[in-house]
Amino acid sequence: MLATVLHGKGDIRCEEVAEPKILKPTDAIIKLAASCVCGSDLWPYRGLQPVGGPTHMGHEYCGVVVEVGEDVKTLKPGQFVVGSFCISDNTCPHCRFGFPSSCEQREFMSGAQAPYARIPLADGTLVATPEMPSDDLIASLLAVSDVLGTGWYAADAARVQPGSTAVVVGDGAVGLMGVLSAKQMGAEKIIAMSRHKTRQNLALEYGATHIVSERGDEGVARVKELTGGVGAESVLECVGTQEAMTQAMNCARPGGHIGFVGVPHGVQIDGQTLFFAQKSLMGGPAPVRRYLPYLMELVLNREINPGKVFDLEVPLADVAEGYRAMDERRAIKTLLRV
Amino acid sequence: MLATVLHGKGDIRCEEVAEPKILKPTDAIIKLAASCVCGSDLWPYRGLQPVGGPTHMGHEYCGVVVEVGEDVKTLKPGQFVVGSFCISDNTCPHCRFGFPSSCEQREFMSGAQAPYARIPLADGTLVATPEMPSDDLIASLLAVSDVLGTGWYAADAARVQPGSTAVVVGDGAVGLMGVLSAKQMGAEKIIAMSRHKTRQNLALEYGATHIVSERGDEGVARVKELTGGVGAESVLECVGTQEAMTQAMNCARPGGHIGFVGVPHGVQIDGQTLFFAQKSLMGGPAPVRRYLPYLMELVLNREINPGKVFDLEVPLADVAEGYRAMDERRAIKTLLRV
Repeated sequence: MLATVLHGKGDIRCEEVAEPKILKPTDAIIKLAASCVCGSDLWPYRGLQPVGGPTHMGHEYCGVVVEVGEDVKTLKPGQFVVGSFCISDNTCPHCRFGFPSSCEQREFMSGAQAPYARIPLADGTLVATPEMPSDDLIASLLAVSDVLGTGWYAADAARVQPGSTAVVVGDGAVGLMGVLSAKQMGAEKIIAMSRHKTRQNLALEYGATHIVSERGDEGVARVKELTGGVGAESVLECVGTQEAMTQAMNCARPGGHIGFVGVPHGVQIDGQTLFFAQKSLMGGPAPVRRYLPYLMELVLNREINPGKVFDLEVPLADVAEGYRAMDERRAIKTLLRV
Repeated sequence: MLATVLHGKGDIRCEEVAEPKILKPTDAIIKLAASCVCGSDLWPYRGLQPVGGPTHMGHEYCGVVVEVGEDVKTLKPGQFVVGSFCISDNTCPHCRFGFPSSCEQREFMSGAQAPYARIPLADGTLVATPEMPSDDLIASLLAVSDVLGTGWYAADAARVQPGSTAVVVGDGAVGLMGVLSAKQMGAEKIIAMSRHKTRQNLALEYGATHIVSERGDEGVARVKELTGGVGAESVLECVGTQEAMTQAMNCARPGGHIGFVGVPHGVQIDGQTLFFAQKSLMGGPAPVRRYLPYLMELVLNREINPGKVFDLEVPLADVAEGYRAMDERRAIKTLLRV
């Protein structure tokens, strides 16, 4: 089959790879309804994260089960499923504690920018819809798999509460999903930090009440102005750079919470600074599996429309343009037709 | 009056200093019932923290009000009061949010190793007892001022819950108060990491269910053994060194919480390590003022006995021995008779 393979910095291709097969009795094979490019795919694409040879990309997925291993109990061919970018057994102590993204058997999904994909630990990882969803819901169901689940976790880790103030650092797809999530969790004031008009507009559509286009100290000063001089209870850090982390720390009020979901690249936190800042930090790969049933229901009931975050759609064959558009910030997030 | 002055590394003296006076209309002067030496006093005593010239030491205190400034509304001479080591107005947004230790008018108390002390922002900072407490409660009321309040915050920031498992890193006075606090908050399993017999015994008396005397990776391995291989929901870091922070991080389970109250000295946290560890970090100077009414009530009702942490008592004139004994770990915490 044709699928996407990253060969090195800036070199992503659609080329022939082997079709996935059941390797373990707990595996399932799905036919993807759609796939997409993640902001985190840009780290290796930009050469900021090493890759050990050609890598079959993609970790966001939804689609129809076509085959299951003999130990798979809860799924059967023909079901429509959504899974997390973290493979998990959903039974280990970490899963039962609500952190399937730290599952004892955790694997990170790969190879989902393709027509077919193998999903390990299918019983633990996949959640089926009650019936076949209509086509116009596919983009939103795909978003649940990572980008929405990750934005949701940022808001959850930042302990957004009804009536509270949330600041979202980062206007990529995850940041925009953070805005949507904060809104769903009842935040009253949602400040999106964004310099790009199209992203600002989507942030406002998703529930942002204020836009701050300044960055760094100026951005922090604007957030302080908007919060009576005190800062926000909740800050969602959705980038992963030192600059974004510092900005997030400085936007939170003492006793406030920072949920950080951008994979940190070169971020160092000074213990004494964090101590005297008196703000909580919680991050990590999002425990999407925990959120899946609830978020899928919101999508199926058409209460949220996370799929709007896909503002570019290309066939798998044009994946190079899909990555390039995101890299150049011409697109927020690219959906790949498979 | 005679009071303690730190002149440099290892050089603490009891010598004549000026008696405190009302400097601002919001001040009160108290006659101390007792004072004590804090673990944090050992940082400058050991030369690990610079002091800018001779410094009048001491930030833990309780005693009787002898004079109040003209703007003090809620206190009058003759009342017995306990205050926090953080001076706070108790009315600013940070105080109202529960973080008086980040008060907009915060000052750190000093000069309390003395017969008399000036307390700024007296209305905000001090809490009076309903009546004059009996002498045998003075040590415990003094402990509330910092060491118990700080241990309590460690447990609170580590989100100790009824039935949960808590690990306490550090067997100094704060760590032992952390054990007491975790017990009060209903932790079912409390693992105290301690290598010193007298401290182990006090930890057990305060509610520790297990003692781990190993440190570093071995200590972490023992904690894992005691927690079914998963680690603890709550870890109280009560030291402030890189080694202690690393140990704390590794003892917590994914999704668990680390409350850190040892003032970090040279502690660096790698963002990506923290991310993949998926553990929350919350620290800072303890918001003792928030806890004061409740903790004072526990002491006055004789439900807790934090004063037992004072295992050495010397007159103020012998302060040098008081510091030395703690520095050499012959004493857990020194009470100074004033």
